[in-house]
Amino acid sequence: MTSSLGRAFRLTTFGESHGPAVGVVVDGCPPGLPVTAADIQHDLDRRRPGQSRLVTQRKEADAVQILSGLHEGETTGTPIALLVANADQRPGAYDHLEHVFRPSHADYTYLAKYGRRDHRGGGRASARETVGRVAAAAIARRLLQEGPGIEVLGWVSQVHDIDADLDPSEVTVDAVEADPTRCPDPAAAASMTSAIEDARRRGDSLGGVVTVVARNVPPGLGEPVFDKLDADLAKGMLSLPAAKGFEVGSGFAGTRLTGLAHNDPFEMGADGAVTTSTNNSGGVQGGISNGADIVCRVAFKPTATISSEQKTVTTAGEATTLAATGRHDPCVLPRAVPLVEAMALLVIADHWLRQASTRILG
Amino acid sequence: MTSSLGRAFRLTTFGESHGPAVGVVVDGCPPGLPVTAADIQHDLDRRRPGQSRLVTQRKEADAVQILSGLHEGETTGTPIALLVANADQRPGAYDHLEHVFRPSHADYTYLAKYGRRDHRGGGRASARETVGRVAAAAIARRLLQEGPGIEVLGWVSQVHDIDADLDPSEVTVDAVEADPTRCPDPAAAASMTSAIEDARRRGDSLGGVVTVVARNVPPGLGEPVFDKLDADLAKGMLSLPAAKGFEVGSGFAGTRLTGLAHNDPFEMGADGAVTTSTNNSGGVQGGISNGADIVCRVAFKPTATISSEQKTVTTAGEATTLAATGRHDPCVLPRAVPLVEAMALLVIADHWLRQASTRILG
Amino acid sequence: MTSSLGRAFRLTTFGESHGPAVGVVVDGCPPGLPVTAADIQHDLDRRRPGQSRLVTQRKEADAVQILSGLHEGETTGTPIALLVANADQRPGAYDHLEHVFRPSHADYTYLAKYGRRDHRGGGRASARETVGRVAAAAIARRLLQEGPGIEVLGWVSQVHDIDADLDPSEVTVDAVEADPTRCPDPAAAASMTSAIEDARRRGDSLGGVVTVVARNVPPGLGEPVFDKLDADLAKGMLSLPAAKGFEVGSGFAGTRLTGLAHNDPFEMGADGAVTTSTNNSGGVQGGISNGADIVCRVAFKPTATISSEQKTVTTAGEATTLAATGRHDPCVLPRAVPLVEAMALLVIADHWLRQASTRILG
Amino acid sequence: MTSSLGRAFRLTTFGESHGPAVGVVVDGCPPGLPVTAADIQHDLDRRRPGQSRLVTQRKEADAVQILSGLHEGETTGTPIALLVANADQRPGAYDHLEHVFRPSHADYTYLAKYGRRDHRGGGRASARETVGRVAAAAIARRLLQEGPGIEVLGWVSQVHDIDADLDPSEVTVDAVEADPTRCPDPAAAASMTSAIEDARRRGDSLGGVVTVVARNVPPGLGEPVFDKLDADLAKGMLSLPAAKGFEVGSGFAGTRLTGLAHNDPFEMGADGAVTTSTNNSGGVQGGISNGADIVCRVAFKPTATISSEQKTVTTAGEATTLAATGRHDPCVLPRAVPLVEAMALLVIADHWLRQASTRILG
Repeated sequence: MTSSLGRAFRLTTFGESHGPAVGVVVDGCPPGLPVTAADIQHDLDRRRPGQSRLVTQRKEADAVQILSGLHEGETTGTPIALLVANADQRPGAYDHLEHVFRPSHADYTYLAKYGRRDHRGGGRASARETVGRVAAAAIARRLLQEGPGIEVLGWVSQVHDIDADLDPSEVTVDAVEADPTRCPDPAAAASMTSAIEDARRRGDSLGGVVTVVARNVPPGLGEPVFDKLDADLAKGMLSLPAAKGFEVGSGFAGTRLTGLAHNDPFEMGADGAVTTSTNNSGGVQGGISNGADIVCRVAFKPTATISSEQKTVTTAGEATTLAATGRHDPCVLPRAVPLVEAMALLVIADHWLRQASTRILG
Repeated sequence: MTSSLGRAFRLTTFGESHGPAVGVVVDGCPPGLPVTAADIQHDLDRRRPGQSRLVTQRKEADAVQILSGLHEGETTGTPIALLVANADQRPGAYDHLEHVFRPSHADYTYLAKYGRRDHRGGGRASARETVGRVAAAAIARRLLQEGPGIEVLGWVSQVHDIDADLDPSEVTVDAVEADPTRCPDPAAAASMTSAIEDARRRGDSLGGVVTVVARNVPPGLGEPVFDKLDADLAKGMLSLPAAKGFEVGSGFAGTRLTGLAHNDPFEMGADGAVTTSTNNSGGVQGGISNGADIVCRVAFKPTATISSEQKTVTTAGEATTLAATGRHDPCVLPRAVPLVEAMALLVIADHWLRQASTRILG
Repeated sequence: MTSSLGRAFRLTTFGESHGPAVGVVVDGCPPGLPVTAADIQHDLDRRRPGQSRLVTQRKEADAVQILSGLHEGETTGTPIALLVANADQRPGAYDHLEHVFRPSHADYTYLAKYGRRDHRGGGRASARETVGRVAAAAIARRLLQEGPGIEVLGWVSQVHDIDADLDPSEVTVDAVEADPTRCPDPAAAASMTSAIEDARRRGDSLGGVVTVVARNVPPGLGEPVFDKLDADLAKGMLSLPAAKGFEVGSGFAGTRLTGLAHNDPFEMGADGAVTTSTNNSGGVQGGISNGADIVCRVAFKPTATISSEQKTVTTAGEATTLAATGRHDPCVLPRAVPLVEAMALLVIADHWLRQASTRILG
Repeated sequence: MTSSLGRAFRLTTFGESHGPAVGVVVDGCPPGLPVTAADIQHDLDRRRPGQSRLVTQRKEADAVQILSGLHEGETTGTPIALLVANADQRPGAYDHLEHVFRPSHADYTYLAKYGRRDHRGGGRASARETVGRVAAAAIARRLLQEGPGIEVLGWVSQVHDIDADLDPSEVTVDAVEADPTRCPDPAAAASMTSAIEDARRRGDSLGGVVTVVARNVPPGLGEPVFDKLDADLAKGMLSLPAAKGFEVGSGFAGTRLTGLAHNDPFEMGADGAVTTSTNNSGGVQGGISNGADIVCRVAFKPTATISSEQKTVTTAGEATTLAATGRHDPCVLPRAVPLVEAMALLVIADHWLRQASTRILG
């Protein structure tokens, strides 16, 4: 609790890493949206493990089943339930973790909160829960395409101390998908690949940053004072596993500019619409989209699961050590890209629908 | 819309900068909490402008009226309505802004969203709206004191390029309030003061970072997967005017560590409770508090209102320039401290109440 | 908790009978709606006590103050806060009730729930709380007039054993307001008046039924499966003080018809739209409006406050007796009419706004 | 939209009559509750069609699958997803309904709302949707048993013009389940059986009333002013298919009593607790439980589907006639009993959890 997000476009995820299935119910998607299983599968495949040697080797077909809400290829307006079976369960593989707290995982905190925990693969805290988010976001993506024509695209902009050199307005999905790192700067991507492989060899792990841009967002989305567009984006992003920071536009770096340098001067665009000559605001002013690209960055800590030996304690309070042996990613960043996109899609779809009732009097 | 936040401890703010009043309704505060008008006034006075030459000279008594929900000095369990009159209105003072969009303000986006806007002092987008938040948070502060004994404390940790050198676990409220900058590192505070005064002289403005710590938070607060404690903190902070970034624990800097350095080893504390020997997690693991200090940082952009001349356009789409003449802060950071505390208090109070039903079966 | 209702058109009421004020915050009202204080005052005056010898003699000017959300006579899209001061407080008038539970009032249950209660005039459980609802509903009424052109009208259709003989489709607001009973059947109204006066003389009280009709509701409002239009109407009505029952269309009487008699045959209306030749459905089928008049009935129990002596217990658990001496209505029905209208207006306005995002794809 | 109900104990249902499956996600159930598939199956079997000649002959095994939220026989605190496959689909069986509106069904209103509809067996408006509610309520039933020890029991108290003669405080589950009518008054049950069989022979249908009682409810549940316990019960009940009315305690009949007869005198119970000597309040005063039995009645209209010929129109607006040929119940009352129980269980469980945070300060 609580596993629901959104008010007009609302999803509810369910499922643990090692139960029978994970899934999601999407309520509030407007009727008449053409969606296919292939649309959803496409995005699920992007988050699936085992796509390259850089990421975890867990093998899951992750084939989505559509249980409700679609009829003859279009949404009906009723709840859309999507299910993905957990095929790759390994009974016994987690027995050694039943009585020990993995450092910087949610083992201790789940126990503290619920008085019990499902120790198998992280249970509900596993990244496997994000299957439901990505499946729901695939529908949001279709909605934003068919409706306002919004495009959301993410990429890896930093791994450890390697920073990509990119203009957010020029990145393409093809460039992102061209490299297993999902970093569209080839030189940086090559360095990231080496760094990740080196970390794996050392039994260590790396963190980094995903940048996401939303293009063609109409001005007016976001609901002050609490459901500001960037506030809801921040919440969505921080709800992702391993996320530790969020910034919009100039973010933390902008705190080192002065107002004169930071303010975005208004000007008239070629299309006759008001626009800004710079975009330090990141497409959001006063919590409402201004028509410019929405640009956010999300920080992911280094993967907590590492094969090097670490100090910890048992559930009985005794000091012990732990070294991971199972499948795990030395760097989650490439796989975090579809997750960051998913949260952006879900939040923006929700706010696009909300805005419908705001301007109802014309 | 939407001006409500929280599920168990829920506030609804109302009021514009230049209407008759601003205020808040708090619903869900448990009965039996001793609260006085002085408790609320104390926190309101901390956010009030005109406290030093560093901040805006607007003079408001900001005396709170309690309209409901208290009886004989204690909360009754019914909604608590708090009102603060807008005493310092200046009719006509904003006429020159009626047809121009101030750069990096919400003028254009409010018009885009609502088809109209109240141009007087920012209307609802004004920092004056935060009066209601701070008043509500004063009640949350009392609740967290009387209940779990949680303390929330914020301070200015960075202004422009000046970084304070502080250990979050050792900062005291007295040290914070000792200097008008609300930076408890005296050397940094002195530099910040110079920088802010210099910016004012230049007609420019500065941004910075507020750090906030919550101490003595019991393990178990936060509700995965979407209402994670840090996700809700992120939303709360990004809903503040001028906020552009949020991080918890190691945040963005942590992305440049490796897993081996970043993971927080568990150990047994002197009190027999599980604890961690480092706190890169910032007191939150898997979205749930782990008993360590919760440490967050919030980025605030340089004040958008500056007296230097800037390019912009009119509502009719014509190029023009604008230079602010009214009262305004060259740096909002000192006044942002009580706002950041407020959001932390509100979010933590909400989650502390929510947890009551989670462990109800014992 | 919880003092909020609605999702798109959302109100939050506050205030006790004998605190400084009662009021409401309305969030989500679209911008551009012309509303005046007189619009709101008109509806408040209809619920005000002291309008005739039939109802309580409490004298309150109940003048509404608009604190926010309106600018130059139109809504701005920001929260609308409305305040009504409690002028007619009588310190000491309720001292004798501090330690006794009034039968069939909320005295005991408030104490059971909150561990304390404000015994002065019922505190939050007083009908005075409905001031906020009626004020908010006056805005909803304007919205439904300006938007879809919906009219909501209620009247007293039964007092004790006196049933009015009326066709809901022909009742007018003038006919309702023509008699202090708010029963537009003159013969029944005369009998009701006698019955109410007789009950007052006997120190007794009477209950009855209010019927409400919503005309010109477009088909399609209501959100299955839980937020069905009639389900939300039922909740709204049962949230009114003294309400004990709700029915839509044929209601309980319809359970004694057979399907053949009860089903509403579809036919084409003169305007070319689908309609029904009967309206046992009460304008709602499957929880969604069908374009016919929405007709509901709400049962109100006899007023709990009576001047006859009744058995009860003290807060210390001792048997005692109680006879009311203060102002009180022997029959709340005439004053319940604007309350029933208010709940219908609020629920329908909410659903009309919600529907905007349902049909967004055209 | 919206297919979720409850705040602390929250369910989300999904699925259409003729899609692959129906189901529910329950979020907020406390950890540590022992629940088995058999517990859930038991309640599902009670709502299943084909249990006697009185009800529809659709054959569904309705075997529940538990997809998440349980570990080693106890709830974990994470969302509980329950799935029931739709085994008995009949492709083509509904082709003749694709272009015609069945009278007093939701065919027309779904089309009006969504611009399309799934005509197969009612789609989302089918009673099959209630599978998810009953499954979720089986968990609520276990929670209320293990926690406060609340029992919820419903029965058929009226079919058409046949009224059972029963004392709600003495009805037992065995007596209810002893007869296919679920009416525990044997004489009335026999008459009801005859009436239902006669209606079937005539191609007609009957309505009636279900009474539900909740025993051992602690005083204090319910949240004024909008989430009153009876208001939420009313909403829950009216959200059921075919429900047209709700009353609590004396309900509509109570409007014909005077206050002196209707008020429930307080007295001290044998256990030293405050109680009432009568229960016209139906266990709820001021929207809060008072410790007495909660007694509600729900009106269900005669089944809309009948085999007699009825007038209606096609989707093209042409007059036509329709006579049902498929499986259908001439009286839904026996099958409505587990649905009414389900809504009572879900609402009371939600309010029991909510109350945990109200009395947190002791």
